[in-house]
Amino acid sequence: MIELNSIRSEAKEIFAAGVEAVDPYKAIKSLVLVKRNLLVLGTEDEGTVTFDLGKYDRIFVVGAGKATAPMAKAIEELLGEKIHSGLIVVKYGFTTNLMRTEIIEAAHPVPDHNGVRGSRMILDILQEAGPRDLIISLISGGGSALLCQPSGDITLEEKQSVTRMLLACGATIYEINATRKHISACKGGQMARAAYPATVINLMLSDVVGDMVDVIASGPFTPDPSTFIDALGIFEKYNLKDIPENIRRHIRAGVNEDIQETPKEGDPIFELVHNLIVGSNILALKAAEKKATALGYNSLILSSMIEGETRYAAMFHTAIAKEILKTGRPISPPACIISGGETTVTIHGNGLGGRNQEFCLAAAIEISGLPHRVVIFSAGTDGNDGPTDAAGAIADPLTVKRGKDAGLNAIDYLNNNDSYHFLKKTEDLLITGPTNTNVMDVRLILVR
Amino acid sequence: MIELNSIRSEAKEIFAAGVEAVDPYKAIKSLVLVKRNLLVLGTEDEGTVTFDLGKYDRIFVVGAGKATAPMAKAIEELLGEKIHSGLIVVKYGFTTNLMRTEIIEAAHPVPDHNGVRGSRMILDILQEAGPRDLIISLISGGGSALLCQPSGDITLEEKQSVTRMLLACGATIYEINATRKHISACKGGQMARAAYPATVINLMLSDVVGDMVDVIASGPFTPDPSTFIDALGIFEKYNLKDIPENIRRHIRAGVNEDIQETPKEGDPIFELVHNLIVGSNILALKAAEKKATALGYNSLILSSMIEGETRYAAMFHTAIAKEILKTGRPISPPACIISGGETTVTIHGNGLGGRNQEFCLAAAIEISGLPHRVVIFSAGTDGNDGPTDAAGAIADPLTVKRGKDAGLNAIDYLNNNDSYHFLKKTEDLLITGPTNTNVMDVRLILVR
Repeated sequence: MIELNSIRSEAKEIFAAGVEAVDPYKAIKSLVLVKRNLLVLGTEDEGTVTFDLGKYDRIFVVGAGKATAPMAKAIEELLGEKIHSGLIVVKYGFTTNLMRTEIIEAAHPVPDHNGVRGSRMILDILQEAGPRDLIISLISGGGSALLCQPSGDITLEEKQSVTRMLLACGATIYEINATRKHISACKGGQMARAAYPATVINLMLSDVVGDMVDVIASGPFTPDPSTFIDALGIFEKYNLKDIPENIRRHIRAGVNEDIQETPKEGDPIFELVHNLIVGSNILALKAAEKKATALGYNSLILSSMIEGETRYAAMFHTAIAKEILKTGRPISPPACIISGGETTVTIHGNGLGGRNQEFCLAAAIEISGLPHRVVIFSAGTDGNDGPTDAAGAIADPLTVKRGKDAGLNAIDYLNNNDSYHFLKKTEDLLITGPTNTNVMDVRLILVR
Repeated sequence: MIELNSIRSEAKEIFAAGVEAVDPYKAIKSLVLVKRNLLVLGTEDEGTVTFDLGKYDRIFVVGAGKATAPMAKAIEELLGEKIHSGLIVVKYGFTTNLMRTEIIEAAHPVPDHNGVRGSRMILDILQEAGPRDLIISLISGGGSALLCQPSGDITLEEKQSVTRMLLACGATIYEINATRKHISACKGGQMARAAYPATVINLMLSDVVGDMVDVIASGPFTPDPSTFIDALGIFEKYNLKDIPENIRRHIRAGVNEDIQETPKEGDPIFELVHNLIVGSNILALKAAEKKATALGYNSLILSSMIEGETRYAAMFHTAIAKEILKTGRPISPPACIISGGETTVTIHGNGLGGRNQEFCLAAAIEISGLPHRVVIFSAGTDGNDGPTDAAGAIADPLTVKRGKDAGLNAIDYLNNNDSYHFLKKTEDLLITGPTNTNVMDVRLILVR
């Protein structure tokens, strides 16, 4: 048991190192360097871009997302009074003390009129900026709901009704995004158009699988691959008859080229935009890997893009754990396998849990009875897993037995999607509290 | 396209190398060495055991399974007239020309009375063998159905009815095996008991995940972890009221110790049994890895124990392919990721396919549009995937487009479990014909 406990502690350390690497405040501090009048963006490994701040009359800070306040704090500390003014939109309560940047709090995940007001004010700043101005944009998860100003005379309520219809009819996330970008004023590169001809540095904390820049906060500063024609085709494909007439008219106007299409790849406005992902799942995984190596593990990043049904994801991970134990493949013990991304849970029961806890409960069943050298870990980097107070959980070969000793059947709890109550009883929950960042989940397989 | 075609060819070469390594005839030839009066078992890498054949008066060959005939042929070529006599039970049609070993053909997967007769004759040989006799046992997939002699006065029909009830009530494979071992005459170490005090060399070709020797052909020569009490508990757990009275009486007699329990770990009879797995999924994967390395790939064996729902297994594998393309993790291109085991398909539609073809169709959807440097491969080592003439399939980033050009929608075909007809049209099926071996499936992710 002492050995198992020490592996469990190491799992927590490795996770904490991953989360720390994507702390929004620290990430900005480590990727943005200000020396006198020079701003250097990036790392020596991945390449840097240098901006001569002497070229700009004014520097504006804008942004939206749950992690944007600490990002803005870091920028303020770096640029101080070089900042002319700023405005960011954050989720209610996700604030911090800022000196030069105004904060508007708004609703997430369902947008509200504060979000509309905030995004309109940001568009005003961008539109006012000229060729001798520099925009520093800070974008993180939640930015899409917070930058919710609709296009033209569409109302927020009309826009929301379309999102609901798309969700209900089974449209893919790509179809939902294509439509939303064409009824919104900020999404799909439209903030880049508003900012032109100012220079833009767009710093993003990615909470999407694969870090697709046109998906993070619906890509306000990146080319939009979708079109008005796509949006109209989606309405037809799903036979959406209840689309508000106002929206239908807007989309038709776009198709008829009476309204400007969202900016596309190759548009010269993007020559003035410098995108940089400052925090992402793969960056967290790399930091976790570094920590695991420092703790003496042979380590391997499997993928930052694991998706799909959680209990099967657990089976795939435990299949690797079993192979490590049996043949030392893919790497020999002490082994640390690291994966990221975000899985889904199809709800069959009425229990309490989250994808990370369900992952650990399913894994616990698979590793039950294996040698006491295996630990499986899964947690959300935001410190929050489903509607619970846990970030995730840690499973070991005795987890199922601990449950059984307390009168709980692991398979029954899994089938009832009640991982929280099982793992609470077995003392396998991981409780971290909010971490102020979010780059999806980190999973670990440790074999000593 | 030329590049993609060459990657596809390499995938087939790598798979073929894996299959060749577990050819039952070649596997026996490479792991059993006869030099004058010495029989050397195993490899230098994994350790060898040497038998002085001068110590034995008679050598008997016994066995059961689909691949047992070529195994016996190899043994006959190695030992020639040193063999006293032999008897193997194989599936109808799975025969070959043997000189000293009688072949009984019987039904598989549903047993018949030929199987009963064959297994009784093998038990007779084993019981007759004495301390100066050597038994060479050859076991492969299908052995459980072919060694189907029931215990006591239980009839084959009664035994089969219990298996059907267990399958219908949702019993786990462990529960089904625990019960079957206690109503059978051969399974669960009972052939080891019959052979005692003869020496036994038991050579196994494994078709089970994790190569658990008590599961391969229901472990005729290995200790049984389950008991009569377990079997009775399973009847009660699932409230199986229709269990034939004859079987219920037999199990109760076992619980009351009126009938001998199956032999357990530590029983001295096992000191005379030498088990060796001559072919298994991991051995095929290692040979595939060797071939991939020879072709210039960085290669990695993920696990030989992948199980679970096929389409999620596909997502898991393609998540790794995408990470290789994006960040060179877990290994940098040219990369070959190898996995094995056997997934399952929950049937929702009424199409035609198999787990390997469904894997490739699901993977094709995930990799559609990726750079033309990715190939996903999945096939059964027996050359047979589901009720089709294909062994599996090969998917690339153009597979979905080829289907679309032919008027087929990949997602619709996947949802109808109709991978065969989609992949036939896109010319992505792999047709090998029967390979005469079976160590489950081999999957490959190739990224050039």
